[in-house]
Amino acid sequence: MITTDVISRKRYRVEQDKKFRLKDWDANDREGLPPETHLVIDQTAREIVRIEELQGRLHAEHKHKVLIVFQATDTGGKDGSIRRLAGGMDPAGLRVTSYKAPSAIEYDHDPLWRIHPHVPGKGQVAIFNRSHYEDYLVPRVHKIFDEKRLEKRLRHLLHFEEMLADEGVCIIKFFLHIDKDEQKKRLLARQENPEKHWKFDLADLKERDHWDEYQKAYEDMLAFTSADHAPWYIVPANNKKRRDLVLATIVRKHLEDLAPQFPKAAFDVSELKIK
Amino acid sequence: MITTDVISRKRYRVEQDKKFRLKDWDANDREGLPPETHLVIDQTAREIVRIEELQGRLHAEHKHKVLIVFQATDTGGKDGSIRRLAGGMDPAGLRVTSYKAPSAIEYDHDPLWRIHPHVPGKGQVAIFNRSHYEDYLVPRVHKIFDEKRLEKRLRHLLHFEEMLADEGVCIIKFFLHIDKDEQKKRLLARQENPEKHWKFDLADLKERDHWDEYQKAYEDMLAFTSADHAPWYIVPANNKKRRDLVLATIVRKHLEDLAPQFPKAAFDVSELKIK
Repeated sequence: MITTDVISRKRYRVEQDKKFRLKDWDANDREGLPPETHLVIDQTAREIVRIEELQGRLHAEHKHKVLIVFQATDTGGKDGSIRRLAGGMDPAGLRVTSYKAPSAIEYDHDPLWRIHPHVPGKGQVAIFNRSHYEDYLVPRVHKIFDEKRLEKRLRHLLHFEEMLADEGVCIIKFFLHIDKDEQKKRLLARQENPEKHWKFDLADLKERDHWDEYQKAYEDMLAFTSADHAPWYIVPANNKKRRDLVLATIVRKHLEDLAPQFPKAAFDVSELKIK
Repeated sequence: MITTDVISRKRYRVEQDKKFRLKDWDANDREGLPPETHLVIDQTAREIVRIEELQGRLHAEHKHKVLIVFQATDTGGKDGSIRRLAGGMDPAGLRVTSYKAPSAIEYDHDPLWRIHPHVPGKGQVAIFNRSHYEDYLVPRVHKIFDEKRLEKRLRHLLHFEEMLADEGVCIIKFFLHIDKDEQKKRLLARQENPEKHWKFDLADLKERDHWDEYQKAYEDMLAFTSADHAPWYIVPANNKKRRDLVLATIVRKHLEDLAPQFPKAAFDVSELKIK
């Protein structure tokens, strides 16, 4: 049972079409969160228990569809966040899809071609580790397309999510916000840990040189596509424990809005004769 | 080589957002077509040869994407038209997808979920036998959704095709137009031919009772979604030979607009030493 509920979705929510700068969002923000780490951890654990309960009902009810999108710069914490958030969900109703650079056959098609098959059906939670937004970010930062084509792509993303929402998908989008110093710290830590070497991608490392262009691209993209039916949340992510608490609270609240219920039996179960 | 080219796409093209009645379109129209059947057949054969040549180039070039959509009432001639049009294409660059009533798993997702995986990639021609339009027609005629939701669905179809077109798909849409008497004749012929009994679908037969509602739904749908980048053509289809000539001519013209070319070798082939 959550007794105090002072973490507000509104604080993290991006307002549609309102210009902003990511550097004005504090990646260490802790407002409304417990002051001590062990309290943060305890509260997160309670949120996760509630999420798992709600996801169980959602799967049983076979009515609602939930899509959770994670975007972040490299080392932003997508993998860890997803594991914490969804590690205890019933995998029968869960599907995590990770997107890398498009393959040759994916590249032969429109960018949503590789996305659409993985959107959730009834009773499912789908989580995207990176997403359709990559196909706007990368061509923009690397100037592969002209402005007009980029604008069209952004509008296609908006339309795509509008269609999904109209067809019953609850969409929640997270941008994990770390600052450039934090990224440096994490890359150095990764370098020192042989078990994390597999996570190094030289292409990603090169993207660090484009930090400012990516931040700018994110600012425009988040503002343009943070519709009421598919809001973006900027989650302060320098501190992983606090990040997880914010994520879990927002997801729990969205799931509660859906109020999933175990379906009622079509007959009087107490009358059932079990031989 | 086509010497006379008097069949104009414009004659069959639906004008976007302009109201019309299907009963004002003559399902026996033969304007611009040769007067004698053997001449119609000869001209169709020449068009088909040219289409196959263009499709071969398109596949080799690996650049353009083509989507051809067929809609019609039952017995409208979709199967036969597709066989005539595409039977000689290189199957390596061709993919025909036939849509029936959605399966349980398809129905659990948004209606475009079962469509998107089958849109063409570079170098491919995709043909849809029925399509995403069914998921507007059927709920409308059977009053499964309210007006507002139907309007949204129609807008989603428009946005979906706009996205595909912006991402390089050439979209051609055919409505095979037969009248109610012709349908009766074809159903009776089907009844008399045991080899065609498998084509009977009792659900389809029942749809004949909704003939007028379907015609009305088609009228609104064709007008709303006949965008420049995804035009609808109403093809007079009471006569199969003439129908095929019109279809082949329109497809050939669209393929010619794309002007597909065999790729040039990256080196001087005449210098190649073959041991």
